[in-house]
Amino acid sequence: MTAGLAPGPADRLVADPDRLFPPDRTERAIARELYADVRLLPIVSPHGHVDARVLADDLPFGDPAALLIAPDHYVTRMLHAYGEPLTALGHRDRVTGAEPAAPREVWRTFCEHWTAFRGTPTRHWLEAELVELFDLDLVPGPDTADALFDALADRLARPEFRPRAMLDRFGIEVLATTDDPADDLAAHAVLAADEAVTARVLPTFRPDRYLDASAAGWEQALDRLGAVTGHDTGSYRGLLSALADRRAFFLAHGGTATDHGHPDAGCTPLEPDRAAALFDRLRAAGNAHPSDADVVAFRGHMLFEMARMSSEDGLVMQLHPGVLRNYDRAALDAFGPDTGHDIPVATEFTRALRPILEAFGNHPRFRMVAFTVDETVWSRELAPLAGYFPGFYVGVPWWFLDSPDTFRRFRAAVTDSAGFGKTSGFIDDTRAFCSIPARHDMARRLDAGFLARYVAEGRLRLDEAHDTAHDLAHDLPLRVFRL
Amino acid sequence: MTAGLAPGPADRLVADPDRLFPPDRTERAIARELYADVRLLPIVSPHGHVDARVLADDLPFGDPAALLIAPDHYVTRMLHAYGEPLTALGHRDRVTGAEPAAPREVWRTFCEHWTAFRGTPTRHWLEAELVELFDLDLVPGPDTADALFDALADRLARPEFRPRAMLDRFGIEVLATTDDPADDLAAHAVLAADEAVTARVLPTFRPDRYLDASAAGWEQALDRLGAVTGHDTGSYRGLLSALADRRAFFLAHGGTATDHGHPDAGCTPLEPDRAAALFDRLRAAGNAHPSDADVVAFRGHMLFEMARMSSEDGLVMQLHPGVLRNYDRAALDAFGPDTGHDIPVATEFTRALRPILEAFGNHPRFRMVAFTVDETVWSRELAPLAGYFPGFYVGVPWWFLDSPDTFRRFRAAVTDSAGFGKTSGFIDDTRAFCSIPARHDMARRLDAGFLARYVAEGRLRLDEAHDTAHDLAHDLPLRVFRL
Amino acid sequence: MTAGLAPGPADRLVADPDRLFPPDRTERAIARELYADVRLLPIVSPHGHVDARVLADDLPFGDPAALLIAPDHYVTRMLHAYGEPLTALGHRDRVTGAEPAAPREVWRTFCEHWTAFRGTPTRHWLEAELVELFDLDLVPGPDTADALFDALADRLARPEFRPRAMLDRFGIEVLATTDDPADDLAAHAVLAADEAVTARVLPTFRPDRYLDASAAGWEQALDRLGAVTGHDTGSYRGLLSALADRRAFFLAHGGTATDHGHPDAGCTPLEPDRAAALFDRLRAAGNAHPSDADVVAFRGHMLFEMARMSSEDGLVMQLHPGVLRNYDRAALDAFGPDTGHDIPVATEFTRALRPILEAFGNHPRFRMVAFTVDETVWSRELAPLAGYFPGFYVGVPWWFLDSPDTFRRFRAAVTDSAGFGKTSGFIDDTRAFCSIPARHDMARRLDAGFLARYVAEGRLRLDEAHDTAHDLAHDLPLRVFRL
Repeated sequence: MTAGLAPGPADRLVADPDRLFPPDRTERAIARELYADVRLLPIVSPHGHVDARVLADDLPFGDPAALLIAPDHYVTRMLHAYGEPLTALGHRDRVTGAEPAAPREVWRTFCEHWTAFRGTPTRHWLEAELVELFDLDLVPGPDTADALFDALADRLARPEFRPRAMLDRFGIEVLATTDDPADDLAAHAVLAADEAVTARVLPTFRPDRYLDASAAGWEQALDRLGAVTGHDTGSYRGLLSALADRRAFFLAHGGTATDHGHPDAGCTPLEPDRAAALFDRLRAAGNAHPSDADVVAFRGHMLFEMARMSSEDGLVMQLHPGVLRNYDRAALDAFGPDTGHDIPVATEFTRALRPILEAFGNHPRFRMVAFTVDETVWSRELAPLAGYFPGFYVGVPWWFLDSPDTFRRFRAAVTDSAGFGKTSGFIDDTRAFCSIPARHDMARRLDAGFLARYVAEGRLRLDEAHDTAHDLAHDLPLRVFRL
Repeated sequence: MTAGLAPGPADRLVADPDRLFPPDRTERAIARELYADVRLLPIVSPHGHVDARVLADDLPFGDPAALLIAPDHYVTRMLHAYGEPLTALGHRDRVTGAEPAAPREVWRTFCEHWTAFRGTPTRHWLEAELVELFDLDLVPGPDTADALFDALADRLARPEFRPRAMLDRFGIEVLATTDDPADDLAAHAVLAADEAVTARVLPTFRPDRYLDASAAGWEQALDRLGAVTGHDTGSYRGLLSALADRRAFFLAHGGTATDHGHPDAGCTPLEPDRAAALFDRLRAAGNAHPSDADVVAFRGHMLFEMARMSSEDGLVMQLHPGVLRNYDRAALDAFGPDTGHDIPVATEFTRALRPILEAFGNHPRFRMVAFTVDETVWSRELAPLAGYFPGFYVGVPWWFLDSPDTFRRFRAAVTDSAGFGKTSGFIDDTRAFCSIPARHDMARRLDAGFLARYVAEGRLRLDEAHDTAHDLAHDLPLRVFRL
Repeated sequence: MTAGLAPGPADRLVADPDRLFPPDRTERAIARELYADVRLLPIVSPHGHVDARVLADDLPFGDPAALLIAPDHYVTRMLHAYGEPLTALGHRDRVTGAEPAAPREVWRTFCEHWTAFRGTPTRHWLEAELVELFDLDLVPGPDTADALFDALADRLARPEFRPRAMLDRFGIEVLATTDDPADDLAAHAVLAADEAVTARVLPTFRPDRYLDASAAGWEQALDRLGAVTGHDTGSYRGLLSALADRRAFFLAHGGTATDHGHPDAGCTPLEPDRAAALFDRLRAAGNAHPSDADVVAFRGHMLFEMARMSSEDGLVMQLHPGVLRNYDRAALDAFGPDTGHDIPVATEFTRALRPILEAFGNHPRFRMVAFTVDETVWSRELAPLAGYFPGFYVGVPWWFLDSPDTFRRFRAAVTDSAGFGKTSGFIDDTRAFCSIPARHDMARRLDAGFLARYVAEGRLRLDEAHDTAHDLAHDLPLRVFRL
């Protein structure tokens, strides 16, 4: 073994204190110093998918597989890629009625495939969780599966592993959730009212299902939104009013942002009468096969309307297009969405976003943060746009790109044209609550390493790098997301 | 000269034992250790273009230019880029009738342009061949051209430089060739029957010319396939039967894979009757300008049929789309295909491959390995697909991308979503027989260097890196290609 | 502070002698040695936007803001991205009539946002200018703004900071400008006739406005070109003759190149009669909304014609497509073009350039250098094309890509297929006269660092790296641009 590098004996997990720092000695020394300064800063998480009800209810998490395996599509998709059906990973097959494997079996299946995760960020986060959160050092594998399962189950039953206790332990200052516009935000209200909860848990307005007439249950969703708001969502103008009302409701509950996960970034506005007629046509078609062209036109128009409202109410607009959802339709039917087969496609931003940016890009209240799973747009489109429009920011790497090497490519691609300050600051974008500290720690290490290289290359002074590291880890996301 | 780094005096070739390892001392020490373990492993070459007849006949190779220059389009295209006509590089001009230059002249032309290859993988491979295979240390150049030519000619006349002797010396365990479905595979049979040949030389089923109705000589090829199989290849169903028969024939000769070099990855299936009617229309048009739409539709449908057959017979399907062949049509007319002017184009996989992946991507017998010359799809499309579908693997860098820096970009782009185990393992893809050891050695060095970085960054334990290096160099290609 | 790395105390600018070199000690030592050899070579600038009249008149530059801020759209776009209106940056608003801020105010605004430029190449160049050209070491900021302004103003009033004095001091051997075909090139003639001017200041023929029928003032431009040449530019054939005449005029004034900034790389030729009819139709439409299809067809045809003329007169054709100009139309109306909102789009070269390359790519007099702001085409399209066609070269990183990390990605992407010798050599492409030395110095440092890595990895001998560094810094641009 090469002294000082291998993080430990082969049969024990050890958290390497220098992990993810550049191997070069000069860079590593600077990175250590930069990281030491930001390591313990509070966590600001302006975009994620934790359910506020979990925190409001504060019930113990379930078994280890239900917490760490079944709901994490980063994990299940890799196990599926090695031939494991989703039933073996804790999901019920709605089509055949096949029951999911028992939790311990799910965990064993995961441990048997542990080597599949070598080199992936998932492995990095899971190791960090086991070592730093659960204080376990067994390497997952067939021989350790049961012992790990039992140890995890034991810990999850303890009070200090309940959701709110972890929220505290993680040092979370702000945690934004993702919420349906019709949600009553009762869980958020409970948390806000509880003085023992020091973290601000804030809702995010995600209206996708109301803007996409091809989404399953579109009509029912509109009806429900109408019922919640008292507006006639059977009409275009009623829908606009209902959405505006709910935006105000989210604002009143501390929300500062909206979230838009469209297939593309199109946002061409229509004249109001044409938009109304289009809405009527879609509404008449109901869920019975509206034309693709109508669906796309309406979605693009409504994205423009969301931008218009943002320029009025100041909610920060998050856009992350470019994923073909539910690629494997048989798996969708059997197991539902978010089970690991959303696949990226090439995505265009420059032409697509022009209507919004020409109309609102210079508006002092408007703000958009654009995320991508197509990394080619970072240097070509997003950084040049962020380097001109005051209302436009480049989102950090997201989803498939949220990993050490890609993170470095991101900063190397966008800094030239957008600097550090027109990026979003780190977002963890996770539904895996326990992985939040590991994800933020990874980002802090990577930014420290990136800045260390710039210092070592004479491109930044060390004091500037300290200041920038602090900004990226904490102040910038607060500022960008108007927190 | 910086001590210890410059590989030697300016007038001598020296094989640097540390070549292609990371310069950082920590990483380099680990890379050396990883490489030492895999350096001498047998070569598994599951995809290449060596002609089995060369090995079956075992005649001496021709002169140095005929072996190393004229047939290697990596070499000829660069010389052409410096203004050398292909006649000067050993090719006859079919249009003007101009004769090729004499071998010694071709070799001199090459040596005069040696500096053009600085920094290219071709230079790396050629140097390795000269030093390690031919035991020569003269730097190519105008002053050394004749001496090198004579020394090479002398060696090529010796028994130990005959094809089979080199096959042995290279330590080749498996060598897959690329073959026409109508080929009788007699050369493969000769080699299989000869106990003195320890390497397994296996055919690969490449049906492109039968699936592309716009290819020169399509009708004649179909007729010949009909004659070989006894099926009526004048009908769609006869063609399917003929292809299925030949797949079985290839399987019986040890073949484990098919190879598909389409312009794009389209694979939309047609109803059988529509496919038959389309085939009839194309067959009626013959080589007289079928419509582009018909050609594309038929090719896509047939790719789907090939996938269907793979799901039945288990032949691993290799797909490498995205090259615009024979870009310089005047050069095609004069010198034929594969003379250096095939140029890549942007290529889409996510949407294009959905029909095959939805139908067969989860099938236990189906397997596809997808290669690209458009590196943007690695992180965006291929790795996410390989990270979900058990039947899908990402091919290693191919053709224009088969080089040190690109190889590193490849692993950095795909490992996050696909890990190491859902990649193909190295393929050399070469028609330059003598370059096979140099190409595999390069891949082993680069994987060792890549893994060393992960160890140095605390992302892999050293024992895991050893295991992974071994897997990538040897076991993984055996497994992925069902060898 | 980490000893030896931080370029100095936080309140003083210091030029780090090792800036931009790789941090690894081995690589850095080699890079230093390579750079030392090329540092003082004369500057060859074959593509830029300095106005020859400035040099001919040799008047003192204006105030610091008019020299360094207002005209530099790299600077103004970033300040705009932080909310500063262009009036605050020295531009008059033509729509509202709002006057620009006073120079000192513009400078203060810039200094207040100095941290926005951290990590950008603009910051690097500006620092180098302040330290090395103006001998100032104050870090820009609110507290130093006035002192810096006064010191700069003082220097700009001195004789040694006049344009010609700087031209000498910079060691410029060749400086190509960018000029309208109708320009009388009087300033170039003045400079050529003056023996005290040792630099060759050469015009570049940029005919975009005559080839793009949708450009503002197209008809008037044609009329003026007709008046200058005596050809009837109301006819297609007259236009061709006029352009041919002016190319000869530029050649006679030392010009060696043309420059083409089209939205795309399309170049499909038309039959002469169809081209003439198309021209007549466009001319009839005048500036009153010609059809997009007509505009695109004419522009593509004319690009082909420019290539044909290049194959005859030998002017090197520079092509740099892929930027959507004047994205923010309200800003265009108020402040004119080149104010920071030209945004790149994905650009295709392989298919688009085939007409020109098939017709002229092998022609000994024809030469094209292609630049891109879409870096995905480097490895996929431009390097393979340059690695085959003798008449095709890959341009170095340009505009948004002209920065340290992108420069490294460029070499890593193109060297495999095109080597070093089929690239353009560095071009600075700047209208910021004072930044020319800093930009060339950056390129020399980066090439030294890149080559150092290849030496450290055993891919080049040190003597070859020296030779290549010299070639890239000086000889190659002279050769490629036929200087």
